[in-house]
Amino acid sequence: MIAPAKSLAKTVLAAPEKGALENLSAALAEDMRGVNAIILQNLESEVALIPQVARYLIAAGGKRLRPLLTVASARLCGAVDNVCHSLAAAVEFIHSASLLHDDVVDESHQRRGQPSANEAFGNKASILVGDFLFARGFELMVASGSLEVLKILSRTSALITEGEVLQLSLAGNIETREADYLRVIEAKTASLFSAATEVGAVQAGSPHRDEMRDFGYHFGMAFQLIDDVLDYSADAGALNKNLGDDFREGKLTCPVILAIAAGTAEEKDFWRSAIELQQHEDAMFTRAQSLMHKYKVFDAVRARAEDHAGKARAALQGLPPQPLREQLLDVLDYCVTRQA
Amino acid sequence: MIAPAKSLAKTVLAAPEKGALENLSAALAEDMRGVNAIILQNLESEVALIPQVARYLIAAGGKRLRPLLTVASARLCGAVDNVCHSLAAAVEFIHSASLLHDDVVDESHQRRGQPSANEAFGNKASILVGDFLFARGFELMVASGSLEVLKILSRTSALITEGEVLQLSLAGNIETREADYLRVIEAKTASLFSAATEVGAVQAGSPHRDEMRDFGYHFGMAFQLIDDVLDYSADAGALNKNLGDDFREGKLTCPVILAIAAGTAEEKDFWRSAIELQQHEDAMFTRAQSLMHKYKVFDAVRARAEDHAGKARAALQGLPPQPLREQLLDVLDYCVTRQA
Repeated sequence: MIAPAKSLAKTVLAAPEKGALENLSAALAEDMRGVNAIILQNLESEVALIPQVARYLIAAGGKRLRPLLTVASARLCGAVDNVCHSLAAAVEFIHSASLLHDDVVDESHQRRGQPSANEAFGNKASILVGDFLFARGFELMVASGSLEVLKILSRTSALITEGEVLQLSLAGNIETREADYLRVIEAKTASLFSAATEVGAVQAGSPHRDEMRDFGYHFGMAFQLIDDVLDYSADAGALNKNLGDDFREGKLTCPVILAIAAGTAEEKDFWRSAIELQQHEDAMFTRAQSLMHKYKVFDAVRARAEDHAGKARAALQGLPPQPLREQLLDVLDYCVTRQA
Repeated sequence: MIAPAKSLAKTVLAAPEKGALENLSAALAEDMRGVNAIILQNLESEVALIPQVARYLIAAGGKRLRPLLTVASARLCGAVDNVCHSLAAAVEFIHSASLLHDDVVDESHQRRGQPSANEAFGNKASILVGDFLFARGFELMVASGSLEVLKILSRTSALITEGEVLQLSLAGNIETREADYLRVIEAKTASLFSAATEVGAVQAGSPHRDEMRDFGYHFGMAFQLIDDVLDYSADAGALNKNLGDDFREGKLTCPVILAIAAGTAEEKDFWRSAIELQQHEDAMFTRAQSLMHKYKVFDAVRARAEDHAGKARAALQGLPPQPLREQLLDVLDYCVTRQA
């Protein structure tokens, strides 16, 4: 009961569609139902505001890409158990906690096509419920009883916050180099992808731990590079993208860094006033996009993402061939080629 | 080399005085130096803003009461080791993370007589560095290698946030009952005090785990009750107190709840407009204080604190008599009778 290759990718990533899980391979779909049940159960609290805010963010949909990587990794390595489902839920909790806090820090108004939690419930609730999700995720990991897994996920949690703080430190600084940007996305995104796949392998007691970690790492790098491209180039009608958010927040993402590096003196002045002085009229965003087109920046960033995708594919070659491996590679391809 | 009883309490609680540790018993002072070294070491990060914000809050002083409880508990139970120092540091990290987030949520301007971190570095840095401290504290606990300890501290971390969210939910609601208030302080304060003492006992492999947990729990309840009294009644010249902060934030603490319950219809109207409508002129705070005096509210709250202190004392009676036990009881007395 393996679903056709493209459908796994589409159903995972085209959330929050209803019934998205139906097209997963039967076994993986069963895993994800188990993960979902654990997630919902652990959002509960006697303090009503907690499940209210948390369900708004988590239960409403979202890609569930990271927990899927954990269970798929364990299954690829030969064994999935209930503990693994809990770890996948914990990974989603860490991710969700950081989303809640990011949206406060970025003063975001929208997420996944609806008002963001900070917009709907206020900054205070978002901060505190984010803390709750992080703590509850931590409880779930402890319940796994594996110190090895705890070590990976606690280190990762610290790394994610280091990436977020570094990004904050660099915001508005047009001297930011590509190497700085790569440090940011490595810490804030790739570290959780790689932890997600690594703990799946560790929990399965697999000898393929390193390969699975490398797969997750490069997948995460590619994923974030594309995410940052889409902030300037997503299809206009795409529901889940907030075109121009990074620009308005003065974030020095790869497309901006490359456009500045290629620009004339006059264009550099434009970037300086746009980024440093936080002048963000619609006309400026349009000019930013056209400069990126002029220097073929989107192609250049996509090439970097493709490079990471290649390394991710190579990492999986060490595992025995099986339909699930091909499906995972297809999810990767979908992420790297998506236009929205 | 045991210091006179009063001096332990004063030196611990009169922070951030320089050389405060010098008057501790030699062994405990050595413990706290070990804890401090671990704290400082774990504030480090390649991302410069992290140690900058974290040192501003943690390294600048503070009572270090909770980590002291952990090492004192372990020592009282017969054994302190380096792991115990790390756990004490982890307890301080959890506490510091919640202080950083609390100050953002409460929109505080001051802490310990200086501008609060959110005032000095902005809300964004406070949120993200708080996340870092929490994650780093988690790493420290994992390094302890004790799943039992991890279970206690992860459960506690979730409880603290539940207490904070409950407090946020109740803010501005003059129908809040004393039982609700007690749930808040039990979760946000007493849970960490009790975890601090319990993990000391667990790490020491002591049979007195329950007594130490009860001691910490009742100490924490007493501590918070007094803290909430002092928000309305601290000595005017006290450096470390922000008189009236709770009032301005519309927090339904014990003094307010008791004053409302005792008040006339006209006085209830006053409380309603002050708390619900967030009208907070100086004259209103003065009236709030005078109503509390009228109904002897401070005495009533202090009596509740004394009740918990009595239970804390009773819990310690199960442990063998030794100078350190008396010193700990003295720290408790100092906390319960302090006027600022």
